[in-house]
Amino acid sequence: MEVYVDNSATTKVSDSVMEVITRAMREDYGNPSSLHNKGMVAENYIRHAREQIAKTLCCEEKELIFTSCGTESDNMALFGIAEGYRRDGMHLITTKVEHAAILSSMKRLEDMGYEVTYLDVDSMGRISLDDLRAAIRPDTILVSIMYVNNEVGAVMPIKEAGRIIKEVNPKTLFHVDAIQAYSKIDINPKRDNIDLLSVSGHKIHGPKGVAFLYVKDKIKIKPIIFGGGHQNGLRSGTENVPGVAGLGQACEDAYRDIEKTREYLYGLRDYLIEGLEKIEGVIINGDKSHNNAPHIISVSVPNVRAEVLLHALEEKGIYVSAGSACSSNKPQVSATLKAMGLPKDSLESTVRISLTDTNTKEEMDYVLSAFNELVPTLRRFIRR
Amino acid sequence: MEVYVDNSATTKVSDSVMEVITRAMREDYGNPSSLHNKGMVAENYIRHAREQIAKTLCCEEKELIFTSCGTESDNMALFGIAEGYRRDGMHLITTKVEHAAILSSMKRLEDMGYEVTYLDVDSMGRISLDDLRAAIRPDTILVSIMYVNNEVGAVMPIKEAGRIIKEVNPKTLFHVDAIQAYSKIDINPKRDNIDLLSVSGHKIHGPKGVAFLYVKDKIKIKPIIFGGGHQNGLRSGTENVPGVAGLGQACEDAYRDIEKTREYLYGLRDYLIEGLEKIEGVIINGDKSHNNAPHIISVSVPNVRAEVLLHALEEKGIYVSAGSACSSNKPQVSATLKAMGLPKDSLESTVRISLTDTNTKEEMDYVLSAFNELVPTLRRFIRR
Repeated sequence: MEVYVDNSATTKVSDSVMEVITRAMREDYGNPSSLHNKGMVAENYIRHAREQIAKTLCCEEKELIFTSCGTESDNMALFGIAEGYRRDGMHLITTKVEHAAILSSMKRLEDMGYEVTYLDVDSMGRISLDDLRAAIRPDTILVSIMYVNNEVGAVMPIKEAGRIIKEVNPKTLFHVDAIQAYSKIDINPKRDNIDLLSVSGHKIHGPKGVAFLYVKDKIKIKPIIFGGGHQNGLRSGTENVPGVAGLGQACEDAYRDIEKTREYLYGLRDYLIEGLEKIEGVIINGDKSHNNAPHIISVSVPNVRAEVLLHALEEKGIYVSAGSACSSNKPQVSATLKAMGLPKDSLESTVRISLTDTNTKEEMDYVLSAFNELVPTLRRFIRR
Repeated sequence: MEVYVDNSATTKVSDSVMEVITRAMREDYGNPSSLHNKGMVAENYIRHAREQIAKTLCCEEKELIFTSCGTESDNMALFGIAEGYRRDGMHLITTKVEHAAILSSMKRLEDMGYEVTYLDVDSMGRISLDDLRAAIRPDTILVSIMYVNNEVGAVMPIKEAGRIIKEVNPKTLFHVDAIQAYSKIDINPKRDNIDLLSVSGHKIHGPKGVAFLYVKDKIKIKPIIFGGGHQNGLRSGTENVPGVAGLGQACEDAYRDIEKTREYLYGLRDYLIEGLEKIEGVIINGDKSHNNAPHIISVSVPNVRAEVLLHALEEKGIYVSAGSACSSNKPQVSATLKAMGLPKDSLESTVRISLTDTNTKEEMDYVLSAFNELVPTLRRFIRR
């Protein structure tokens, strides 16, 4: 049996997405900047994708900028605001558990003279709203917080954070990296006081190589890539029409039955957690309640190295992740798990199981039987 | 009959490319950063694409960085060198007829304090090597010249330019935007003294949303996108595996029979030029000899607006371009045609016909018959 439960690393492109991509590559392959009909047809793919995505966020179509990946969306949000609003201040706030796309960009901004405050998280992986409130200053131009943590599934208190930010300094903008949240959580940027929002295609059964950044109307970001002035001058380069069309389809599909999907995923997750917790030596990290996201489970088997467990599971056809798989393929101690205060013997002994709605209860049974068989065996080899 | 001769705007994805993309999206959909086998399989797609591309340029695989589009490749070359070699000087040289991806980036560099020299071109669209030689200074860190002009098909004297640059200032680096040249011209960066080279996928029957930048070993560029440190830290973000694999295939296909392809395209081009020149009121711009590229023909019908001719041809199923289609879909006077000194009545009356090896002689006959029918009619409506 093959069980792919590494869906937070990447997902399989779905039938409906593949179909629209193929059409845009083979039949309607025009350049949207062309003046003739083939250009207009290509432009319509992009317009349709905008419509599909705008509906899922209750936003305007013009508030969406297409990029090449979640990392670019995050970069564009941070550098775009930092450079666009430099005159209002040079202070930014983020958390210690962000994706490398945020943390590396923040480091770069520090090199450029900006000041960054990194918020701590508690043992569940969530920031304190009091810390956030205390960190906001008159010169704070941006707060960037991820919605769902990619390693442990912690859901940040985004709505409360949005309210607090706007209360303390209405000029401070709020960016949310929603790459692991989108398709799992109902997001409405205007309602939730979110000014910028990053979403990636390949995490939601869309294609790799395409993502978007929501930027609230009237907010003026500076571009990070310069050229022919595509997308209102904000992102030059011929639009990736098949990718954008595939992304639009994936977004529409993701929100079609969002409540049902959430319920289904929580069912699988709860079942898996219940079974895993019965195994001696297995620890589930973070919040086991439905306060956490429905698709990510962080599992430690103290003193058993994550790569060993990962490869043992792989031999049985089960694909999980050690760390977040988003950084490099050299395993390193997770900043998130460290910030959550995990004991030393868990830090390098944690794998992530991440689900999607095509996973089944039978697959969960298979995963549980594998853990039941492997964990006692692997623990026998622990050096004491 | 439908005749798509706007192949310099974008091309149809080929069968072989579509096949590898579909496989990477539907079967081998892993994240190359994943430690398990699905990650390794995905990584192998990227490695294979590197091999395919390296062979076409006689370069090393590690000298290739995958990006999201030609514009990003150009940006990365310019900003990457400007920031990486700032201490060696702040002077750059380019031409007046570059793609917007270069010209807009140069403008941005000027805003950042760099100095840029813009070389003139002659009536054929080519720079003067004496001008180039005179422009190189001790603080010149980069020269950026496009290989084939996207509007008129002029081929720049790249080999001679490379020799001159290295002769006058061996520390000056040489970037070549080869987006319209690659697949049409034999390019060997080491032999030709090229240090950086930009190539885009969708101009050569590969997918949109993917491109590469060749960077000669030992040259240290600074990244423009920050994150998980993918591609040796030079371009973060989960690799667009299907796109990269498709690009690799397109590159291999493009160079399989390069000499035959060139000959075939020159055959079509010469036939078309010969036929077009027989029509009263039609002017072919630039060099009609084989000094020009084999696939681009710039055609003026003085005083007939380009959009009018474009749409008249479109009604007959013929797709051409007004301007380069790479900038915006608002027509504007071409900087290239202006720099070449075209008379005023041609500047807004020029269309581009761009060929690929799936175009046929029958299609050329159809295009010629359309021009023969349309041009006299349209010229009758010219206001005098």
